[in-house]
Amino acid sequence: MDAAQFRRLGHALVDWIADYREGLAARPVMSPVEPGAIKARLPAAPPEHGGAADELIARLDADVLPGITHWNHPAFFAYFPSVTSYASVLGDLACAGLGVQGMSWQTSPAATEIEEVVMDWLRQMVGLSGAWTGVIHDTASTATLTAVICARERRSGFAPAGLQRAAAALTVYASSEAHSSVEKAVRLAGLGKANLRLIPTDARRALRVDALADAIDRDLAAGLVPCAVVATAGTTNTTAFDPIDAIAEITERHAIWLHVDAAMAGTAMVLPECRALWHGIERADSLVWNPHKWLGVGFDLSAYHCRDPQHLIRVMGTNPAVLRTPHDGEVSNFRDWHIQLGRRFRALKLWFYLMDQGVEGIRVRLRRDLANAQWLAAEVRAAPDWQVVAPVVLQTVCVRHAPAGVDEPERSARNLAIADRINRGGRAYLTPSVLDGAQILRVSIGAERTEREHVAALWAALREAAAAT
Amino acid sequence: MDAAQFRRLGHALVDWIADYREGLAARPVMSPVEPGAIKARLPAAPPEHGGAADELIARLDADVLPGITHWNHPAFFAYFPSVTSYASVLGDLACAGLGVQGMSWQTSPAATEIEEVVMDWLRQMVGLSGAWTGVIHDTASTATLTAVICARERRSGFAPAGLQRAAAALTVYASSEAHSSVEKAVRLAGLGKANLRLIPTDARRALRVDALADAIDRDLAAGLVPCAVVATAGTTNTTAFDPIDAIAEITERHAIWLHVDAAMAGTAMVLPECRALWHGIERADSLVWNPHKWLGVGFDLSAYHCRDPQHLIRVMGTNPAVLRTPHDGEVSNFRDWHIQLGRRFRALKLWFYLMDQGVEGIRVRLRRDLANAQWLAAEVRAAPDWQVVAPVVLQTVCVRHAPAGVDEPERSARNLAIADRINRGGRAYLTPSVLDGAQILRVSIGAERTEREHVAALWAALREAAAAT
Repeated sequence: MDAAQFRRLGHALVDWIADYREGLAARPVMSPVEPGAIKARLPAAPPEHGGAADELIARLDADVLPGITHWNHPAFFAYFPSVTSYASVLGDLACAGLGVQGMSWQTSPAATEIEEVVMDWLRQMVGLSGAWTGVIHDTASTATLTAVICARERRSGFAPAGLQRAAAALTVYASSEAHSSVEKAVRLAGLGKANLRLIPTDARRALRVDALADAIDRDLAAGLVPCAVVATAGTTNTTAFDPIDAIAEITERHAIWLHVDAAMAGTAMVLPECRALWHGIERADSLVWNPHKWLGVGFDLSAYHCRDPQHLIRVMGTNPAVLRTPHDGEVSNFRDWHIQLGRRFRALKLWFYLMDQGVEGIRVRLRRDLANAQWLAAEVRAAPDWQVVAPVVLQTVCVRHAPAGVDEPERSARNLAIADRINRGGRAYLTPSVLDGAQILRVSIGAERTEREHVAALWAALREAAAAT
Repeated sequence: MDAAQFRRLGHALVDWIADYREGLAARPVMSPVEPGAIKARLPAAPPEHGGAADELIARLDADVLPGITHWNHPAFFAYFPSVTSYASVLGDLACAGLGVQGMSWQTSPAATEIEEVVMDWLRQMVGLSGAWTGVIHDTASTATLTAVICARERRSGFAPAGLQRAAAALTVYASSEAHSSVEKAVRLAGLGKANLRLIPTDARRALRVDALADAIDRDLAAGLVPCAVVATAGTTNTTAFDPIDAIAEITERHAIWLHVDAAMAGTAMVLPECRALWHGIERADSLVWNPHKWLGVGFDLSAYHCRDPQHLIRVMGTNPAVLRTPHDGEVSNFRDWHIQLGRRFRALKLWFYLMDQGVEGIRVRLRRDLANAQWLAAEVRAAPDWQVVAPVVLQTVCVRHAPAGVDEPERSARNLAIADRINRGGRAYLTPSVLDGAQILRVSIGAERTEREHVAALWAALREAAAAT
């Protein structure tokens, strides 16, 4: 492909994206294809000869779009908001076009320094003090693994034999509502699932501090070594917040690493009125949240903030001859701040997005979503045979069809059937989930184009589906 | 930003990228800025008000380009080729524009199924048998960590307590020329640096199989448990190949996991005439190579191939209620195939690139680069006072200015000064490295626009710099 063809196809693709975005509302939210349908459209062997670039857009229409579940659809209420703003798309395009590696400062100083600046902007935006340093990670799963490994190394004193043959086992604590990535991190870090304590939660589904204290005391009495607590600021299922300040009382007393997983809900802290929810955050050792969710930046861009970057660098750093540069003593080489070595210039899309929206523009959108969630919750509460089954803390509303005279397991079966009917119907997409062993309907509000009318349409669709089930 | 502004800015940005690429040769390859210069151009606080998107391109010119080290410059000879083709840029743009999550099949079936197809195309392109299954990882560092953890879990039988309180310590083996990511993986996996054996190499800088066998026997005699060998197919420094087939004799005998790190050199296997270099590859358990290096796809896109995906899924999988879907039993959910949960639609850029170039187009370019490397090596060998200090296996040429009468450490100092003069001069960019304790000049050929004339210009610049040093 030469420059002329790139210009021509690039312009066409930009227009295709705009057309796609503008026409989203007319598409079924969840892809209706059956397994294998897309695969069957592509040849089994790679093309020996090229020259097919002029077909790219036709292939997107024919082979890709039928198999797309539209995360930016105004009726997307599943999983979490994944707001990929136009400005962020342009940032990703610039990143790809430059095609540089930001692994070391010297390999593109702008990649490192613009990241330093915009990560400090993010820190200010969510109200963190200047004691925090930020770096872009790819995902919260990776960031939480990083935090668990940092905790492990601090506790074990960088033992040359790692965890092997250590005198006492390290233990990790999180609530029973914590994200699956916590258990995964504990397993991957070699600590073993048996050394993860899932602490029960209270009526709000927040970690019970008394139970945490008891578990730590029991482990200490048994000769184990409490190593890390992963507190959740906004659980996946219901957006419950663990009491960070009270947890910090305990972690500080025992010198336990406190990591906070605020993957989805961290964005809410751009609103000063939400910050009481993570009161005590300044007492944590590390924190991850995902600007690639509700904030407006396309995947992937997780914000990892820590209080001791030198410790992080000692855990993650390497120093082979081939990577040494004259400026190493005076610059950040972000390859030493995470698991990966190579790194894209992801700061660009965040920078573009903030220039386009400003913090004020983001606040307006987030408050719209919070209001829409409260509106839906009020409608559901007022309806006979429907329940709001968890506190509506932010933009996630967990509801249930609960007609009188229908008990478990039939009630769960009906709610799963409602979800299936909604999702297959294509007018909206939500996540069926499980709460206290019962099937529920989880409505996550926050796609960029989701207005009150779309939430109202979902609510009408839910009632219709319930009536038909 | 609305659709009209996105179209306008998108078109302008596509043109800006084409102009940038067309004008690359006139820019200094390595960014000449001093530390802090870019950072100083941005405000310390985030913008409260938005609306500045129309300035994006002016900011790219003013604030970003001075701080860019141009990896796609025809005179880029540093680190490794990072070929970010135009077609790949378009694929990344389509990926960003769609803005979907490929974590589960249902969250966009096309993302999963097109990845299955193009990863199988890659398998065929490098001559692997149908016994291998592929998945896109982000980087080789992450993939090697994944392999080491898979090895650990296979050997420990998924011990509930992980590595803690195990009866005997697991050990890992790699050559002393292995990439720094191997040591990092061993540390992050909790195995401990002390349990990594760096095996000496032979005159070709390939792992010495006799020394590997001795190390394993010693460890077994000491009651340790050999767990994994990481063989390198193309070392970072000199592109040396460990003897995979002979290593496999040993790993099979002891049921040791064999992982092959072919990060840069895996691309060479698209050329059938290169495949003897990794003879025995079918006997490995896992393999990583980076299409985001020499192949032509923009960062990040690592190919991880394994022979037992069910084992990988058992190591990496989670199954929270919120992620369950009706089709789980019959589809691939790639979130369970690596460390991350979320995933971009990275297969698009690979698909676009292969449609544009075809396998034939890639082979032509790779052979051009191999020929350029041999040409440079011949020139250097024929020049008085210059040496080729390692076999030229692929496209990396390690050279040294070695004037008679100049000994160590002066000789090393002069070579470092030559690299510094070349890199600061802006006409080319190469990597100073260290071989056997001595400073060398490492020339990695393979940027998409690098033709014979650019290699010849580098060779002239090297001689000029040597004369001036």
